[in-house]
Amino acid sequence: MRQFVVVGHDAPTTPEFPLDDLAGGAGRLDVLCRCVSAALCLSHGIREETRVHLVLDDTYTVVFDGATVRRLNPDERSTAALVRGALEERDEAVGHEPVEASPGVSLYRFGFETTLDRVAEDGTVVELHEDGAPVVERPALADPVFVLSDHRAFADEETALLDAVADERVRLGPASLHANHAITVAHNHLDTGRFTRGRGECHGA
Amino acid sequence: MRQFVVVGHDAPTTPEFPLDDLAGGAGRLDVLCRCVSAALCLSHGIREETRVHLVLDDTYTVVFDGATVRRLNPDERSTAALVRGALEERDEAVGHEPVEASPGVSLYRFGFETTLDRVAEDGTVVELHEDGAPVVERPALADPVFVLSDHRAFADEETALLDAVADERVRLGPASLHANHAITVAHNHLDTGRFTRGRGECHGA
Repeated sequence: MRQFVVVGHDAPTTPEFPLDDLAGGAGRLDVLCRCVSAALCLSHGIREETRVHLVLDDTYTVVFDGATVRRLNPDERSTAALVRGALEERDEAVGHEPVEASPGVSLYRFGFETTLDRVAEDGTVVELHEDGAPVVERPALADPVFVLSDHRAFADEETALLDAVADERVRLGPASLHANHAITVAHNHLDTGRFTRGRGECHGA
Repeated sequence: MRQFVVVGHDAPTTPEFPLDDLAGGAGRLDVLCRCVSAALCLSHGIREETRVHLVLDDTYTVVFDGATVRRLNPDERSTAALVRGALEERDEAVGHEPVEASPGVSLYRFGFETTLDRVAEDGTVVELHEDGAPVVERPALADPVFVLSDHRAFADEETALLDAVADERVRLGPASLHANHAITVAHNHLDTGRFTRGRGECHGA
């Protein structure tokens, strides 16, 4: 299982946002939608062993589960419509019980800290950081959980929470990437097995 | 210089398409817009040494030049607006002379074959192919030009044109990726220097 947590700092928490203005009237929901596509969409199918958690303004968390999601397309607008559908059902999410608004799309009534605690139980929490170890040097990562921020940097309190549970600090490369591009690169490293080789092994030939 | 050519088979050739329906009424312009973002957008800036060529239904080619482009945002809609602006000026593109509709966004009145011939003069044409050599085994690629198709496979005649000029056949990994995700992965390989190491060298440590 691979998981991605994306913290949205400028995301809608009610369904009254325009699908025609995702990068403005909907905050920056466009960023989060691109992350869903990067996490789950293959050219001919869905990454079934992957889950992505969108934290909306530290209020709700919408989880897309590749194993069960339906009607997911790679464009921003249709993904935003699924987020809107989840927000329409938000009154049904009580305590830590989610509401599944459409197949594989569930909304939880909690934000970053609880999401982080829950994913930390399941896997190896990976913080992507410019001071991290180059990804090609990392040993095997069992059930990795990558935690990323949207177009803004993590707030100080978010960084503190993440530092407390992170098992690894990894750098994907020298360029500073958008969150969705980082997700794509992380997948490729996992796909090609570079994450699962021992430190210092030969990756050529 | 890195270049990406993306062949759009279901793309608009006039500006009368809806920005609110990029994955429907505008054909699949959403796919091409995501490719522009993957090719040019960094978290804090633009990849200035990169150019991306969008072939629109083998009729026009819109070129985004990272060195001079302005007002480029990572979302699909704003990129589509730049494509629309280029199509609005299409009558000004005569012969092989382009029209620059906005800074760094030029439209040419030719399709895939001429685009391919022109980029082949400048660089190493790379065909991404599932039977290609694993990317980690490739030696240095000088001025690589990656040629990709949108959501559809290359037509037979396009494959024949590409085979005739391709210098390399490369596989990025075992998963079949969307074009925009393949662009992101190719950039990462170039960023981290894996493309530029010799065959069989040690990439760990």
